[in-house]
Amino acid sequence: MKQFVVIGLGSFGISLAKTLYEMGNDVLVIDEDEEEELVQAMNGLVTHAVRADATDENVLKSLRVKNFDVAIVAIGKNMESSIMVTMLVKELGVKYVIAKAHNELHARVLYKVGADRVVMPEKDMGIRVARNVFSSNLIDLIEFSKEYSIAEILPIEEWFGKTLKEINVREKYGLNVVAVKKFNDEIIVSPGAGL
Amino acid sequence: MKQFVVIGLGSFGISLAKTLYEMGNDVLVIDEDEEEELVQAMNGLVTHAVRADATDENVLKSLRVKNFDVAIVAIGKNMESSIMVTMLVKELGVKYVIAKAHNELHARVLYKVGADRVVMPEKDMGIRVARNVFSSNLIDLIEFSKEYSIAEILPIEEWFGKTLKEINVREKYGLNVVAVKKFNDEIIVSPGAGL
Amino acid sequence: MKQFVVIGLGSFGISLAKTLYEMGNDVLVIDEDEEEELVQAMNGLVTHAVRADATDENVLKSLRVKNFDVAIVAIGKNMESSIMVTMLVKELGVKYVIAKAHNELHARVLYKVGADRVVMPEKDMGIRVARNVFSSNLIDLIEFSKEYSIAEILPIEEWFGKTLKEINVREKYGLNVVAVKKFNDEIIVSPGAGL
Amino acid sequence: MKQFVVIGLGSFGISLAKTLYEMGNDVLVIDEDEEEELVQAMNGLVTHAVRADATDENVLKSLRVKNFDVAIVAIGKNMESSIMVTMLVKELGVKYVIAKAHNELHARVLYKVGADRVVMPEKDMGIRVARNVFSSNLIDLIEFSKEYSIAEILPIEEWFGKTLKEINVREKYGLNVVAVKKFNDEIIVSPGAGL
Amino acid sequence: MKQFVVIGLGSFGISLAKTLYEMGNDVLVIDEDEEEELVQAMNGLVTHAVRADATDENVLKSLRVKNFDVAIVAIGKNMESSIMVTMLVKELGVKYVIAKAHNELHARVLYKVGADRVVMPEKDMGIRVARNVFSSNLIDLIEFSKEYSIAEILPIEEWFGKTLKEINVREKYGLNVVAVKKFNDEIIVSPGAGL
Amino acid sequence: MKQFVVIGLGSFGISLAKTLYEMGNDVLVIDEDEEEELVQAMNGLVTHAVRADATDENVLKSLRVKNFDVAIVAIGKNMESSIMVTMLVKELGVKYVIAKAHNELHARVLYKVGADRVVMPEKDMGIRVARNVFSSNLIDLIEFSKEYSIAEILPIEEWFGKTLKEINVREKYGLNVVAVKKFNDEIIVSPGAGL
Amino acid sequence: MKQFVVIGLGSFGISLAKTLYEMGNDVLVIDEDEEEELVQAMNGLVTHAVRADATDENVLKSLRVKNFDVAIVAIGKNMESSIMVTMLVKELGVKYVIAKAHNELHARVLYKVGADRVVMPEKDMGIRVARNVFSSNLIDLIEFSKEYSIAEILPIEEWFGKTLKEINVREKYGLNVVAVKKFNDEIIVSPGAGL
Amino acid sequence: MKQFVVIGLGSFGISLAKTLYEMGNDVLVIDEDEEEELVQAMNGLVTHAVRADATDENVLKSLRVKNFDVAIVAIGKNMESSIMVTMLVKELGVKYVIAKAHNELHARVLYKVGADRVVMPEKDMGIRVARNVFSSNLIDLIEFSKEYSIAEILPIEEWFGKTLKEINVREKYGLNVVAVKKFNDEIIVSPGAGL
Repeated sequence: MKQFVVIGLGSFGISLAKTLYEMGNDVLVIDEDEEEELVQAMNGLVTHAVRADATDENVLKSLRVKNFDVAIVAIGKNMESSIMVTMLVKELGVKYVIAKAHNELHARVLYKVGADRVVMPEKDMGIRVARNVFSSNLIDLIEFSKEYSIAEILPIEEWFGKTLKEINVREKYGLNVVAVKKFNDEIIVSPGAGL
Repeated sequence: MKQFVVIGLGSFGISLAKTLYEMGNDVLVIDEDEEEELVQAMNGLVTHAVRADATDENVLKSLRVKNFDVAIVAIGKNMESSIMVTMLVKELGVKYVIAKAHNELHARVLYKVGADRVVMPEKDMGIRVARNVFSSNLIDLIEFSKEYSIAEILPIEEWFGKTLKEINVREKYGLNVVAVKKFNDEIIVSPGAGL
Repeated sequence: MKQFVVIGLGSFGISLAKTLYEMGNDVLVIDEDEEEELVQAMNGLVTHAVRADATDENVLKSLRVKNFDVAIVAIGKNMESSIMVTMLVKELGVKYVIAKAHNELHARVLYKVGADRVVMPEKDMGIRVARNVFSSNLIDLIEFSKEYSIAEILPIEEWFGKTLKEINVREKYGLNVVAVKKFNDEIIVSPGAGL
Repeated sequence: MKQFVVIGLGSFGISLAKTLYEMGNDVLVIDEDEEEELVQAMNGLVTHAVRADATDENVLKSLRVKNFDVAIVAIGKNMESSIMVTMLVKELGVKYVIAKAHNELHARVLYKVGADRVVMPEKDMGIRVARNVFSSNLIDLIEFSKEYSIAEILPIEEWFGKTLKEINVREKYGLNVVAVKKFNDEIIVSPGAGL
Repeated sequence: MKQFVVIGLGSFGISLAKTLYEMGNDVLVIDEDEEEELVQAMNGLVTHAVRADATDENVLKSLRVKNFDVAIVAIGKNMESSIMVTMLVKELGVKYVIAKAHNELHARVLYKVGADRVVMPEKDMGIRVARNVFSSNLIDLIEFSKEYSIAEILPIEEWFGKTLKEINVREKYGLNVVAVKKFNDEIIVSPGAGL
Repeated sequence: MKQFVVIGLGSFGISLAKTLYEMGNDVLVIDEDEEEELVQAMNGLVTHAVRADATDENVLKSLRVKNFDVAIVAIGKNMESSIMVTMLVKELGVKYVIAKAHNELHARVLYKVGADRVVMPEKDMGIRVARNVFSSNLIDLIEFSKEYSIAEILPIEEWFGKTLKEINVREKYGLNVVAVKKFNDEIIVSPGAGL
Repeated sequence: MKQFVVIGLGSFGISLAKTLYEMGNDVLVIDEDEEEELVQAMNGLVTHAVRADATDENVLKSLRVKNFDVAIVAIGKNMESSIMVTMLVKELGVKYVIAKAHNELHARVLYKVGADRVVMPEKDMGIRVARNVFSSNLIDLIEFSKEYSIAEILPIEEWFGKTLKEINVREKYGLNVVAVKKFNDEIIVSPGAGL
Repeated sequence: MKQFVVIGLGSFGISLAKTLYEMGNDVLVIDEDEEEELVQAMNGLVTHAVRADATDENVLKSLRVKNFDVAIVAIGKNMESSIMVTMLVKELGVKYVIAKAHNELHARVLYKVGADRVVMPEKDMGIRVARNVFSSNLIDLIEFSKEYSIAEILPIEEWFGKTLKEINVREKYGLNVVAVKKFNDEIIVSPGAGL
């Protein structure tokens, strides 16, 4: 179990914080929350939820942010605050700082002021969706190289009731089967052609 | 080569359109572009870039949107426009419509008015980042099942100059090597232990 | 007696809710009511008046909206909320949903997300007023066909003290008298010419 | 053919102007039209469409508004302009002035400054919809008195192929049939029971 | 002693209300007073000062405005409110209503809805200042006709110690002395030439 | 004929400039006129009308403001500009500067930066109206002292056809008649009692 | 110890007030402080900190501002308030008033309404920085005349361990050494060449 | 002669750029200048004045900013732009970058992204003014140490016509005279007591 602090409760920050908590981590969320509802709604979904201004160094100190393993600066539109907070959490001593950037220039500044990793959700998802737009039976994929990808796909109808050999996956589709997940969720790694 | 129309030039729409075009597709982008710079900047990066109001049915007709294979409604904050345009492109006859949603309620409406697939970039990336936050040598992963994932990872230093057998990947890390990308970008599928 | 829920307290919603209640129905009104006066002013004029955000599904559930016979979504300018609420009340199980639309596009979306009937007060009244603009003695009319209308008219002065035969209504005006309302509010259906 | 001037191009003004023109009248529309599209869109749908500020007396004079038979002040939200224009068109000599009101107080002022008739579309439609909310086969109705209405209704399925006598309309439903419109749009007035 | 109600606390309303009160009248002032300071500051300077919305008929009734002798509608920029309130106080039965207008069109509307007298302070003062701009010894004047004015003037230096005859006012300046105010504030009406 | 420059075209500035011009003076008006209509509308009503920013010293110099006899700073709400312009025109050498003030504090500043006379139209008119509120037949008055005023009044009905003696003005009303304006506009100064 | 009142808590006012207090003076700060944090944060850093509107003469009187030796009007962007307050504190009797100006025109007005000294921090610092932009070993300087400045400079490396004579400062650099500060902070005035 | 680029035309940037140019340097100024007047007004006062968006890297490249010796980022209120531009000019290769900061946090970020020197004009001037607030005859000073300052002062009246010895400056005031500037601007360094 690790200690995470997530600053900023937009869609990105919320889903990240909730997932980290569900994975068994200790998660503190901080948001200025002008409408006074966001932080309250996070109670029970993370370890602690605090309504505070993270650009105020004293706030970060009183919340003992320096003791956290990872800080994720998920502040949305306000680039200025995003930059200030990233610098502050790094200076306070957090070892690993992930920051969300709005654009390329913003990303470069974030690295300069101490971010260890910068993500751009909208841009990154644009690329992911472009790559698998037509693959309705494709669930997820890793683009390993230009010629070689690893993908999780749904079986198509004509495969039902057939062995891999009968389907002739490699010949017909140029696919190499790495693993098979059966309907009972059993996983068979490096399946033989007779499966 | 497929015909794509991308409506809305936020970070998501821009990276999606550029990636689709780089993958060899025909890509039309449409944006109201009040600052008059976005559309101009897309020239050369996609097939066509048009400054127009996509909530106007006549605009969509004159651009012959119905002839496109896929429409991606990447409109940002204006949920109303996002809903209107999704309905219009579907009614005009586009077979596959992907729409970006702001929240869960928005997503449900988009499905009701005709979207075939709805994506929520900020939320989806929050989950992805949460899953691989500590894996600094992890490049990408597919969560195949709760116990079994397929991941692209960087080699760690102590592996350099060793065969897979010497590293003893399976015993030591519980990993099964599906493929290896060498520094010269050569791919070796189902590598033998002696590699 | 039927159960009605009216969401949105503009001029349309208010007069509709009051009329339904005066007709002997059970009427619940819901409005966000930012100025905090509208809902209060409805007390006594309908069965219940509640200040709440109808775009919040939990609000609708706690008010047991699904048990109502008819929901009227009379939300004014905010098309987004109008769409969300229409979808939610239909999904919750209300059998008959009437929604007010701002324009034709909005109307189409409302039907897509579940509205059973869509009204456009401003547009509909424009047509009605156009049809009877000059008929100062015309009270109301049904345009039965292009050639044939049924209308309620006031008598003109020269008719006073005369029988229908003396007036010779059919010959002179091409009118067929269906019913007569006397000054004592007595109704005579299919009156004879001697009336 | 009468001369109409319609001032203000909201939903009410537009549908009113179009209907008057379709009925064969001469229709001039005036709107300030800040977005510069409304007036242009009316060309072809009415006799003349002019972009001008109707609160400027000189504008009204140069458009010879005094020669029109009827002026309809359909200005939307700006009560001040609505009042000014109503007074001006009446003072210029237009004989019949219809004005749209936002609320009761506004209506009273409009009568004071010269309106001959004041309509409140949202409120009036609220009452109409309340009255026929459940009558899915009711097309339109005139509430002749508390006990007696004249309505245009669609036939229900079990009536198909039967004479009025067989249906026994009067006994069963308490209805008196005034006229029947057949599927070929033929109208039969005061139909016999054998129809 | 008369009963006055002054509605609207701009510079005009304030100085008017204070002067009326100093002249021994009973003065009620009403203002919406969004900054919550104006009404409070009037306490002690008038008989009663009330913070309320005068466009609400019930407010005017509960303050028994109809019993006042004169209502002065001194509302500043909001023409709509000025019109509504002027109509309401007149309808409630106030015999004499003075209203402040912003421009000529506004003034005409105010007369139509019941104002007995309309003043335009900025415009009226513009004319007054123009007339006496150079007369540094002129205190006030009434323009009785184009050729004949009555004015209050300060004596010029060379008049000191002289009788009216010695000064020869009528011959030299074409002036007719109606009255003289001496330095001890004594007034001499129709002074003889020997004064 | 004198040279006047009027800066600021509110109601006060407009009526002042027009009156000065009608009185035969040379009048220049200056206004920033953001709506681009005010200055144009003044053409023909004054000698020159210029659209310019009077807070720019170079503008005032290029318009040779120093050669004018009187400058009237009639700027409305912007106290800052009013102060700046008053100081500039005085420093440039205009001998007599009249400035309009918004409140007492503003007035004091205007005198400090060089104004020779400060007027407050709204406040001054409030006092004037308070003094003659009931005198429906009073046209104008000069409050000569607490006990003695000079007023222009309309005759009341019962005076018609009577001589001053018959009316017995002095005895009955305590009035001293200084002059009479007959219906043919003839002026009779110091009228005898037989008039 | 002197009595200072500092009005306005921008960067200029804050650093000025703190420095004056650290120098042992009695310092009162006044700020409207709409965000309610500035004044609170000054507690402990100055003698008194008050949240009040300094443009209200009564506020200044109740704080007995007239008894202070110096008033510094450090109001930021609101020129109007800056002018009003400067006039008020001078009129109340403060002997020495320093005011901060936004531009040259503002500065001239401030002198007119009573300021004894006007500073323009941004402009003045622009000049100072321009003068010493390259002198990385220059700490501060006084531009005594065009040819002659007095400056505090850091020694350059090659001077270490040498006497002034050995360095030959006057010959080589045209410098005249007025005083030397040694590393132990000892000051030697008019040092001999042997130092 | 050095090459300077000054970005941002507030009071600080303007006075800095003008001073640098007057000192004989080559000065380029860049400002977005939304009101379109600032840049134009700088023509003639600096070498080049350009209207452009300095946060656009391509703009900085096309202006060959990397060839300049010093960049001064004098951007006012927009901290985000100030940070972006500081990073960009440093990355482009400008050796010495001076940036203006709004507050301490901003200053720390500026150093992180590459600023060589950060100035805070308002704060720095606050300190300077505090130090010499009472010295009305003090023109400038260098605080050499806590006990020892070098100052430029005006002579006081009683010194006129006396030699330094007669005044007895050192004894009476504890002053050491370093140089004297006579009224004819002649400078006498290390003046003898007989001067």
